[in-house]
Amino acid sequence: MSDFVRIVEVGPRDGLQNEKQAVATADKIALIDRLSATGLRTIEATSFVSPRWVPQLADAAEVYAGIQRRPGIAYPVLVPNEQGYDRARAVGVQEVAVFTAASEAFNRTNTNAGIDESLARFEPILRRAAADGVRVRGYVSTVLGCPYQGEVPLADVVRVARALHQMGCYEISLGDTIGVGTPRKARAMLQAVAAEIPMSALAVHFHDTYGQAIANIATCLEEGVRVVDSAVSGAGGCPYAKGASGNVASEDVVYLLQGLGLECGVDLPSLAETGRWLAGLLGRATASRVGQALAAT
Amino acid sequence: MSDFVRIVEVGPRDGLQNEKQAVATADKIALIDRLSATGLRTIEATSFVSPRWVPQLADAAEVYAGIQRRPGIAYPVLVPNEQGYDRARAVGVQEVAVFTAASEAFNRTNTNAGIDESLARFEPILRRAAADGVRVRGYVSTVLGCPYQGEVPLADVVRVARALHQMGCYEISLGDTIGVGTPRKARAMLQAVAAEIPMSALAVHFHDTYGQAIANIATCLEEGVRVVDSAVSGAGGCPYAKGASGNVASEDVVYLLQGLGLECGVDLPSLAETGRWLAGLLGRATASRVGQALAAT
Repeated sequence: MSDFVRIVEVGPRDGLQNEKQAVATADKIALIDRLSATGLRTIEATSFVSPRWVPQLADAAEVYAGIQRRPGIAYPVLVPNEQGYDRARAVGVQEVAVFTAASEAFNRTNTNAGIDESLARFEPILRRAAADGVRVRGYVSTVLGCPYQGEVPLADVVRVARALHQMGCYEISLGDTIGVGTPRKARAMLQAVAAEIPMSALAVHFHDTYGQAIANIATCLEEGVRVVDSAVSGAGGCPYAKGASGNVASEDVVYLLQGLGLECGVDLPSLAETGRWLAGLLGRATASRVGQALAAT
Repeated sequence: MSDFVRIVEVGPRDGLQNEKQAVATADKIALIDRLSATGLRTIEATSFVSPRWVPQLADAAEVYAGIQRRPGIAYPVLVPNEQGYDRARAVGVQEVAVFTAASEAFNRTNTNAGIDESLARFEPILRRAAADGVRVRGYVSTVLGCPYQGEVPLADVVRVARALHQMGCYEISLGDTIGVGTPRKARAMLQAVAAEIPMSALAVHFHDTYGQAIANIATCLEEGVRVVDSAVSGAGGCPYAKGASGNVASEDVVYLLQGLGLECGVDLPSLAETGRWLAGLLGRATASRVGQALAAT
C-alpha cells in the first residue's frame, strides 16, 4: 500500500456553494491561488451549474480564468450536464466531475431526475471528454444515508459507483453527504465498492455533521483508500442551519495523515493560515480544530 | 468482548475546572442531576483540590452534598491529597480519583511534585480508601504528548499506570491531556499498557484539540477498551486560548457507539439537550457536533 495520500481540496466548490455568506470573485481566486501554494495536488475550483441553482458559484468562468494554474496541480470543476461541460471547456478546463446520488429520493429531490436519468445525461459528457483528453471524476453522494429515504442499500451505492467507473470516470468519490456515518458502516461501504472497483480508483468524501469524519477517514485509510476529499476551514454549511453539514476540514485530515505516517505533501501551517483567512471572509471562526489549535500556539 | 461501553462523564469536573466562565453552585447541581437522568452510570462530580488552584470548583462540598444521588450511579470526585480525601469523605463520597502525569515535566509544572512524589502521596489515600470501602480510580495524563517535554516515552506511561494499578486503583484512565494523539499512537499506547494491566481495568480519555478524539476512541474500542471518559458539550477550555483543549463531547461518543453497535445506555437526545443547556450557561455554542446537528433537525 502506498504511503502517499492525495487530498482533493473541495473548499472552493463544495465548501463555498453551501456557505450563506457570498465571497467575491477576487477572493475565490485568491483562495485557490493560496491553496495551490500549500502543496495540494488537486483543487476543485468551481462548478458550472446553473446560477439559478447555485448563485454562489455564478462566477465560475471568471474564477477559472482568473486563477494561476500551476503545473502539476489539477483544477477540476463540477459539470451537471453538457451545457456546463461546454462552459467549462470554453475557459480551458482540463478535468471535470459529474455527480449523482446513490439514493433515488435524494437525486430526484436535488436534480429533478432519477439516478438512471442522471447517468444517461453523463454519457455524452464522458464520450466528449474522452475525445477531448479531459479527465472525468465521478461523485456518488448519500452513500451512508439520505435525508429523504434514510437507509441507502449498499447494493445501490455499488451499482452507481460501478456505472460511473464503467462509463470512464477515472476516480469515484464516495460521499457521506449528510455526515451520518460511523466507522463500521464506512468500512462496510468501502469494502463493498472495492470488491467491484480497484481501490486505487476510489476516494472518500465525508462531512462532519456528527463529528465522525476523521474517524471514518482513519478507518478507510486502514482499508487502503489513498484519496480523501476535504475542505479547508471545514467550509460548507453553517452548523446551525437545518440539515447543514460542513465538509471535514483539510487541516484536520493533514494532521491525521501526519500522525499515521502517511505523506500528502501539504504544508500544514500554511493551509491552516489559509483556512483562518477564509473563515474571516465568511465571517466566522474556522471549523477546523487544527486551525484553531495552531492559531493558539 | 463486551458490547457494553461505560461512559465516564467528566464534564462537571474536568470540563468546568477548565472553563473561564464561572458556573453557579445551583447550576452545577442541576447539571449533575440532569446528567443522572440520561442513563449515564458514572459522573465525576467535582474536585476537592485547593480552591487556590482551582477556584472554579471551590464549592465542591456544597455541590456533592446538593446532588441527588441515584442508586446504581457512581459519583467519583478528584482528590489531590489526604486533605482532599478528608473533605470528600466528610460529605459522604464513596469513590475518589487520583491523578498524575506520565510526563515528569508536566507533573512538576502542574503539581510542583515529581511523579514518584505524587505516587507516594497517593499511598495513604489508597490505604485509607481500602479500609473505608471507597473505590479509587487513577488518572494518568499526557500519555500521548506533553506541552513541556514533547514526546512521552511509552515506558513512562506503562510504569505510572502499573504503579497506580498495583497500589489498588480499580481502573486507570489514560489521558491525552493536550489532544495531540492520532489513532496509530493511541493504539500503540493502549497496547503497551494492556500488556501489563487487564484491558477491563483501563479507560481512555481524549481531548479534541486537533479533532482526532473520536478517531482515537474508535481505534481504542477496536483494541477492546470498554470505558471512555468524555464531557457533555465538549466542556473544558476555550478553543481560542493558548494550549486549551476541550474534552471530547459525550454526545459525539454516544453517537459513535450507537453506530458501532455498542451499548452505553445513554439517551442521546436528552444528553444533547443538557449539553446545549450547559453551553448556554457558559455563554457559547455547544462544542458537540451531534449537539449542534440534533438542534438543527
